[in-house]
Amino acid sequence: MSVAARPGSKTRARVLAVADGQRRTRSDYLATEEPLEVRLAAGGATATVAVTMRTPGADFELAVGFLHGEGVISGRGEVGRISYCTDPEVDAEQQYNIVNVGLTAGALPDLHALERHFVTSSACGVCGKASLDALQLRGCPVLPPGPALDPALLPRLPVALRRRQGLFESTGGLHAAGLFTADGELVALREDVGRHNAVDKLIGWALLDGRLPLHDHLLMVSGRSSYEILQKALAAGIPIVCSVSAPSSLAVELARRFGMTLVGFLRGERFNVYAGEDRLGLPAASRP
Amino acid sequence: MSVAARPGSKTRARVLAVADGQRRTRSDYLATEEPLEVRLAAGGATATVAVTMRTPGADFELAVGFLHGEGVISGRGEVGRISYCTDPEVDAEQQYNIVNVGLTAGALPDLHALERHFVTSSACGVCGKASLDALQLRGCPVLPPGPALDPALLPRLPVALRRRQGLFESTGGLHAAGLFTADGELVALREDVGRHNAVDKLIGWALLDGRLPLHDHLLMVSGRSSYEILQKALAAGIPIVCSVSAPSSLAVELARRFGMTLVGFLRGERFNVYAGEDRLGLPAASRP
Repeated sequence: MSVAARPGSKTRARVLAVADGQRRTRSDYLATEEPLEVRLAAGGATATVAVTMRTPGADFELAVGFLHGEGVISGRGEVGRISYCTDPEVDAEQQYNIVNVGLTAGALPDLHALERHFVTSSACGVCGKASLDALQLRGCPVLPPGPALDPALLPRLPVALRRRQGLFESTGGLHAAGLFTADGELVALREDVGRHNAVDKLIGWALLDGRLPLHDHLLMVSGRSSYEILQKALAAGIPIVCSVSAPSSLAVELARRFGMTLVGFLRGERFNVYAGEDRLGLPAASRP
Repeated sequence: MSVAARPGSKTRARVLAVADGQRRTRSDYLATEEPLEVRLAAGGATATVAVTMRTPGADFELAVGFLHGEGVISGRGEVGRISYCTDPEVDAEQQYNIVNVGLTAGALPDLHALERHFVTSSACGVCGKASLDALQLRGCPVLPPGPALDPALLPRLPVALRRRQGLFESTGGLHAAGLFTADGELVALREDVGRHNAVDKLIGWALLDGRLPLHDHLLMVSGRSSYEILQKALAAGIPIVCSVSAPSSLAVELARRFGMTLVGFLRGERFNVYAGEDRLGLPAASRP
């Protein structure tokens, strides 16, 4: 096995910067984007379960978080040794783009759940409601009530997220996902060129640290909230999801069905609550 | 076959709007998010090739654009009848979430290219360079020089995009992709909750309209430019890609290798050129 440099999370590049007709060549940082292959290993067998474009860094957490979000693993006890690929036939520069997740089980799990992204039969149903039904069938429960969240904390979340977003500062091009306590304290933050990956890295970290389910926490994402973001939060037991931007229709449906709180357009002292307003100790509404 | 309402691209929802501690319940529009299953049909055989979360609308264009971006089809002549699913066993509300793309070929194509997203062998290589090699092997050529683009046009592109972004106006939560001529005229615009889908819809439209390759056009996207956005533009022959936000490292590498122009951070009178500055008739650089 030859030894290669581990890819960094940012890459230097020459850029032609134009401002008001003036041009200047300078060196700049870009968010690194490289494919990551996630492999499962159990009982002597291996299987590739995904290849995703991601920003290198927190690769083990990304792999584990992805597997958890897809329902392939449900807890830390199922995870054995995690390692980068050390196959001698793999080029050195590729070894850091392949993560092997060893399972403690004696055999590979049924990977049927993963296939819903690629192939499905008409019997499965292809509509938003069927997607939510599938989560329920997979065992995702309606989340318990609580925690109570002081709505005055909400405007601080995007500020805290941005302040700690180191890679964004230097590259201007990354999504962030932050895990906060119900008191508004930032517990962990992960960044990635992909929105889903940032959430996977965060939840993968929490899983490996033995923190699931995250019932007393909230997730703040830098982009919009889609079905997949809510699905990952639900699987990790996170009852509150906030974003600076808009949710999709299916994200709202998912939040309502599974007892989650969904906040969007969190900007300054303004925000919208799309589901689960009972967790926010808000004064009675003055209906229009 | 029962008849169902076609899902709309926006969905009405009750929202609790909070501003400066005051709360008000109102009705709002959300961008609709529903799964779409893309099926191929040829010579009596069918195969599901993808299930993607998307905003309903321009579904045929999305399906065809996706297949083109993945290298499954290369031109309009390969596309036969496109239809929504009419299988009697499929629920009415799901029929508009399944698109059958009939091919004129006598048999289904080799779908191996599609599998790179899901499974790959170590022999394929998993790194940015290998991803670019794969595009070359697939037959994506280095794009020819031209067209020349007046850099004074660039600041107008985001303005034109936003002005025509009808769904964004009402939902605040959609990505847009706009196809412009080299003179800065907006030819077509598509919106979606997914960045890639907006580009697929746009290129699918151009393919069905017999406009490929789009050598005299530029693509403007509302989000960041990633590997996949550049890959889709390359497959459609679009030589110039602009975005209001940052590119990833692999997007820049792809643009440089395939002779494309990549502009980022296009905001007001400022922008950065990451590749292919020869197409922009810029004055000589004053190096720092």
